Amino acid sequence: MYMVAFLGPNASYTHQAARDRFNQDTCVLSPQVTIEDVFQQVQSRVAKFGVVPFENSTNGSVVFTLDLFADIKSRHPDIVVCGEAYVDVHHCLLGRGAARLTDTSLSSKTDSPTSSGQATPTSKVPYPKTPAVKPVVPVKHVKKLYSHPQAWGQCRDFLSTYLKGVERQDVSSTSRAAELVAEDQSGSSAAISSAIAAEVHGLDVLARNIEDSADNKTRFFILKRTDCLEHQPMHRGAKVVDDDQNSFKSLVSFTVNHEDPGSLADSLAVFKSYKLNLTSINTRPSGLVPWNYIFFIEFKGRRENDGATGAVNAALRDLNNVAKCWRWLGSWESEL
Amino acid sequence: MYMVAFLGPNASYTHQAARDRFNQDTCVLSPQVTIEDVFQQVQSRVAKFGVVPFENSTNGSVVFTLDLFADIKSRHPDIVVCGEAYVDVHHCLLGRGAARLTDTSLSSKTDSPTSSGQATPTSKVPYPKTPAVKPVVPVKHVKKLYSHPQAWGQCRDFLSTYLKGVERQDVSSTSRAAELVAEDQSGSSAAISSAIAAEVHGLDVLARNIEDSADNKTRFFILKRTDCLEHQPMHRGAKVVDDDQNSFKSLVSFTVNHEDPGSLADSLAVFKSYKLNLTSINTRPSGLVPWNYIFFIEFKGRRENDGATGAVNAALRDLNNVAKCWRWLGSWESEL
Repeated sequence: MYMVAFLGPNASYTHQAARDRFNQDTCVLSPQVTIEDVFQQVQSRVAKFGVVPFENSTNGSVVFTLDLFADIKSRHPDIVVCGEAYVDVHHCLLGRGAARLTDTSLSSKTDSPTSSGQATPTSKVPYPKTPAVKPVVPVKHVKKLYSHPQAWGQCRDFLSTYLKGVERQDVSSTSRAAELVAEDQSGSSAAISSAIAAEVHGLDVLARNIEDSADNKTRFFILKRTDCLEHQPMHRGAKVVDDDQNSFKSLVSFTVNHEDPGSLADSLAVFKSYKLNLTSINTRPSGLVPWNYIFFIEFKGRRENDGATGAVNAALRDLNNVAKCWRWLGSWESEL
Repeated sequence: MYMVAFLGPNASYTHQAARDRFNQDTCVLSPQVTIEDVFQQVQSRVAKFGVVPFENSTNGSVVFTLDLFADIKSRHPDIVVCGEAYVDVHHCLLGRGAARLTDTSLSSKTDSPTSSGQATPTSKVPYPKTPAVKPVVPVKHVKKLYSHPQAWGQCRDFLSTYLKGVERQDVSSTSRAAELVAEDQSGSSAAISSAIAAEVHGLDVLARNIEDSADNKTRFFILKRTDCLEHQPMHRGAKVVDDDQNSFKSLVSFTVNHEDPGSLADSLAVFKSYKLNLTSINTRPSGLVPWNYIFFIEFKGRRENDGATGAVNAALRDLNNVAKCWRWLGSWESEL
């Protein structure tokens, strides 16, 4: 049995990614409080693998994860990405259904005008979208909402239609939101969280799939140490591993000389010259000098098995001539 | 008198940027609840100018502002940047000084061991940094902290030394944090906020400049409508306006054909070929197709007065051949 560290708590979306990608007969999934804890558990060899969120299709990159890869204090020099996982993020409204409430004043079955399924037009939003879903039980008794800050922006249509003006409390994760609602005996609070969290915390699903975009997904990275020779071991569905460069992705970080016009363009041109298609680029403050940046690029291709003469190694040699410094952060099989 | 909309509330860092850059004898500064409200006030001509945060030197870009520039619903088609402002972000710990507390149990003058000025070494942080500053009054009575989520990460050394383990509550702005602490009659809560907020809300400064990096700055953009011909009117210090391209910056957004390897590299190469130095690049989800992106680049140079034959217009014509679509988002005088 080996350990896999993931960003907890239990029932988080990262937990779901870890459960999808690791066979729990052969490993122990260990929830961590922060993304940095996951990096440190892997760096220090306590865990063999780690699972961290990297980007959401609606909200973009997870900057905490990028900053840990930037690693300006050199705390995780041996961490590389060895796999990815995509999880559909379907938010639910979790709370106490009206039938379970003892206080009848909270269990009114007559909907308020704002629960009509029509958002109120305002001068700012003259033609509000009608959300695709309706609550499965009335939600008029909900007086306070808990969730992770990212979730509000993903459920705008539902919230503006059925829970307009209800007080919102930011918390550290959607699972924590469910936990707080479970502790609230009044039954008048609700969480935007996952269906799994409803099971774990014994809550009712008041509404399902309340996200604005049905395509809402989060991408997770599987981490290991560079000296760990195992690949991320399990694929549900026993996908055939294809050795074509296009079925792999690689991540590289680099900094440029900010005095040199075009050094970023030159760095990206290197990958083009070896026909390595860029799939994402991210920028973060360098952490050293204000308004200097570190860049992260992902591209199609694989360094392992690539050999000293392969395209990825050749591109990295050229990058060495135009970038100030760079770091290879892993190659893995694409799941997209 | 014209109106300048800024991201409020009063005493926010954006307010400070607006006060630095606009003469209040000739305009009214109007606080807005969200960054989107600032865009809309300018788009609808209610305000002539707007002030919004764009990036912090420690924490990076403000994604809400980027997404409003991406403008996928075409709600702010006429907004351009016409100026920038840099504000030093010096966080203070605000609360009630022990001398003002009536409950003597909270006003102990003996510091606890965790207030020794030495953080406790842990296995994770074996050599903690000693913060550069000490509280001006004892802070042992502080049992709860309020701040904007960005501030915790900017004050890590101070918090881990003097306020280790104290409960933290995220709120929507550092000014809102000060307001909540002002309302708390017990005197046992404190806010990480600005010195201005201490004045506005009648709080004591318990510690000054508690940020980890003395270089902590936030950059703000001044917005106007494209059809507003005035430049952002006021410069404190009556800087001489130099018409050299290098004293101006421009912002452009563009999307690329994701099927075409190298299209991002080609788009950036356009600017290099006209010797327009890139100063920043940002990426956000396109909002249309998952894992497709919109890019934002800033470069040295000015489109206004550039004429049809100038370098910026020439680069934009070439960009038109390699990018899927693009939008010019303004040129302004660099303040750096």
